[in-house]
Amino acid sequence: MAMELTFCFDFLSPYAYLAWTQIHPLAARHGATVRPAPVLFAALLNHHGQKGPAEIPAKRAYVFKDVVRRARLLDVPLAAPASHPFQPLLALRAVLAAPEGDRRALIDGLFAATWGRAERRGIDDPATVAHVAQAAGLDGEALVARTREPDIKDALRRATEEAVRAGVFGVPTVRVGGELFWGLDSFDLLERHLRGEGGVSDEALARFAAIPSGAER
Amino acid sequence: MAMELTFCFDFLSPYAYLAWTQIHPLAARHGATVRPAPVLFAALLNHHGQKGPAEIPAKRAYVFKDVVRRARLLDVPLAAPASHPFQPLLALRAVLAAPEGDRRALIDGLFAATWGRAERRGIDDPATVAHVAQAAGLDGEALVARTREPDIKDALRRATEEAVRAGVFGVPTVRVGGELFWGLDSFDLLERHLRGEGGVSDEALARFAAIPSGAER
Repeated sequence: MAMELTFCFDFLSPYAYLAWTQIHPLAARHGATVRPAPVLFAALLNHHGQKGPAEIPAKRAYVFKDVVRRARLLDVPLAAPASHPFQPLLALRAVLAAPEGDRRALIDGLFAATWGRAERRGIDDPATVAHVAQAAGLDGEALVARTREPDIKDALRRATEEAVRAGVFGVPTVRVGGELFWGLDSFDLLERHLRGEGGVSDEALARFAAIPSGAER
Repeated sequence: MAMELTFCFDFLSPYAYLAWTQIHPLAARHGATVRPAPVLFAALLNHHGQKGPAEIPAKRAYVFKDVVRRARLLDVPLAAPASHPFQPLLALRAVLAAPEGDRRALIDGLFAATWGRAERRGIDDPATVAHVAQAAGLDGEALVARTREPDIKDALRRATEEAVRAGVFGVPTVRVGGELFWGLDSFDLLERHLRGEGGVSDEALARFAAIPSGAER
């Protein structure tokens, strides 16, 4: 059976955008499949009591510069989004409201509208989401209407909770079996894992898990 | 004049340890010099209102696993420290108390005692620091005594404040000219920068700096 890569993401993250452009060729190289899992990054942050990079001015400035550099290195188009941070709920729900077979094209379109080219109106705008969905071969208006239904809202909540239970604390994170790979920067380790290399012994991990906490900071 | 790489670090960070093993060969490849800059990571976190990875259980577990994988990939020895987090003040001050020409050997020894081999007593213990300093060719007892003097305490405070002013929010961070490279994962971009490639235009950065904040999260 093909290995399944669960790609946990939020449209808010430019690293998730860059990683999304890489995950499909990566999966293809290893005969794996990709299952996109939209999660609400803000809920992950709240759960773990963390601030997002966009909330720390020095980190926000660094991240945008790093993203520009990374995008150039990967030869991936990058543009400044209409606003950031923005409310990603509508777009995340739209992915879950779309039939599974259409999700990849829809995510492609929503990421491109946010980070790939300069759109004047972001994907927090229903008209943008409907337009992108239409271009992906879906009924845009119907999809946006569907995002307002309780079962779709609930599906996003459950997907986020499932990620938290699996130990996910940031996006993008790729889950494969019980292993997590956080960030575009971890993709070299993900590839090693898919080749069956770089396994970490339970003993080695147990030694680190058992490190006692020292004096308080 | 040789380019100077200011290596901001705290012994607390296993990524700083891994990066320290890489920064000297990297600098040598580009005819650059390395200036070690001990900073108190806890003070950076406090300044930016961030939690450290060790304070978020899911992230702590992930980081230790990632570090084990990275160390193996880099073929760098790694052992679980005596405790973590621990109080790094003594070791950081010891670096600043040492003559500049001896600092590299001392940092090598202190990082190795923490992350490179399993020591029963960590570098929060004066006897360990004195022993490591002695092995690095210094008078260990005198160095430990020197860490208690106000000018050394003040030097660490000033070094940390200087890093904050430069926009540093995490360790390891390499400062070169006005550019920052955060994390071992950024070393590919650091090397591009040292080759004079991968420059980011002021216009591109200005577009990202000017992104308006959208709806509250």
